[in-house]
Amino acid sequence: MRIVVIGASGTLGQAVVAELGSRHEIVAVGRSSGDIRIDMTDQESIRAGFGQIGRFDALVATTGKVKFAPLDQMDDAAYRIGLNDKLMGQVNLVLMGMRTISDGGSFTLTSGVLSHDPVRAGSSASMVNGAIDAFVMAAAIELPRGLRINVVSPSLLEESLGAYGPFFPGHEPVPGARVARAYAKSVEGGLSGKVIKVL
Amino acid sequence: MRIVVIGASGTLGQAVVAELGSRHEIVAVGRSSGDIRIDMTDQESIRAGFGQIGRFDALVATTGKVKFAPLDQMDDAAYRIGLNDKLMGQVNLVLMGMRTISDGGSFTLTSGVLSHDPVRAGSSASMVNGAIDAFVMAAAIELPRGLRINVVSPSLLEESLGAYGPFFPGHEPVPGARVARAYAKSVEGGLSGKVIKVL
Repeated sequence: MRIVVIGASGTLGQAVVAELGSRHEIVAVGRSSGDIRIDMTDQESIRAGFGQIGRFDALVATTGKVKFAPLDQMDDAAYRIGLNDKLMGQVNLVLMGMRTISDGGSFTLTSGVLSHDPVRAGSSASMVNGAIDAFVMAAAIELPRGLRINVVSPSLLEESLGAYGPFFPGHEPVPGARVARAYAKSVEGGLSGKVIKVL
Repeated sequence: MRIVVIGASGTLGQAVVAELGSRHEIVAVGRSSGDIRIDMTDQESIRAGFGQIGRFDALVATTGKVKFAPLDQMDDAAYRIGLNDKLMGQVNLVLMGMRTISDGGSFTLTSGVLSHDPVRAGSSASMVNGAIDAFVMAAAIELPRGLRINVVSPSLLEESLGAYGPFFPGHEPVPGARVARAYAKSVEGGLSGKVIKVL
């Protein structure tokens, strides 16, 4: 398969490329590195990127920004960061990628554990992850041409403990390599409309 | 209690006022009718509205717009309607209402069945409802002063069958009066961080 990996240079993206790269052709996409550059908060950039990529069989999105801050320091603008980036960035990849993905192809998005196991300062991440999970379940029943869509919802990555560990007291971290297998399950398996939790 | 009902003149709002109005003082709020006028897509309007309302003990939001359309006719702008209105409208009511609600007060928002039981043309509603459910679970663990927050997630209302029935094949409609009791459970009970499904 020809697999587009959005965020290929990130912690999770690297693990996905390591898992899928031995069996498939990877098109590595990043905001500022990779074979193709896409800023997924910019619809024109997404459109141009898919023009360069051409036909592909699967898209895996492993990236997306949200704001972490205590609830009483959050405001409309702070929530918009996650809505514009991690949520609508990934949704716009699906809406635009639908036009050039092969029949029977798949989209695999990324949400996270905070949709159902919240932490302090994580209300935006919870909101965005819950939105992605529900969008994927709904989009799956409308995709044409045998297309599939799933979302991987991982716990905190072991590799991210340094940056995010203090926000996640008591959460069990998971190695990126284990999370990467959930993307393989989505891409190479037959599931659609599923939230694949890696806890 | 002094209970602010946002969307008091709507189908669901009327049922909530009928349920809670016999035991409590209701402040009826609407975009274009009611004791107080608030456009919940406009932060200035929310701020001004809370200034007029003064101290209150509970807020119930029963309103919010989303776009229904087939997935292949949805674009970024179409999803923004629901994100701006039903999602961030209700979230901004909480963020701003936190400042003037009484100690031990409660917020009760509204999502809906499509977060977990999707229908065709409903991907935006699914996204928004999933976002609200997860936000509420997360916000609950950060609210100060004994404040509580829950969300009522109803099936299609019997009273809305004419307008929305064709979108919901096989869904079991529920009477507004039964959904209204879920709001009473949230306001008068002790729950917090719960998605109260009415199926």
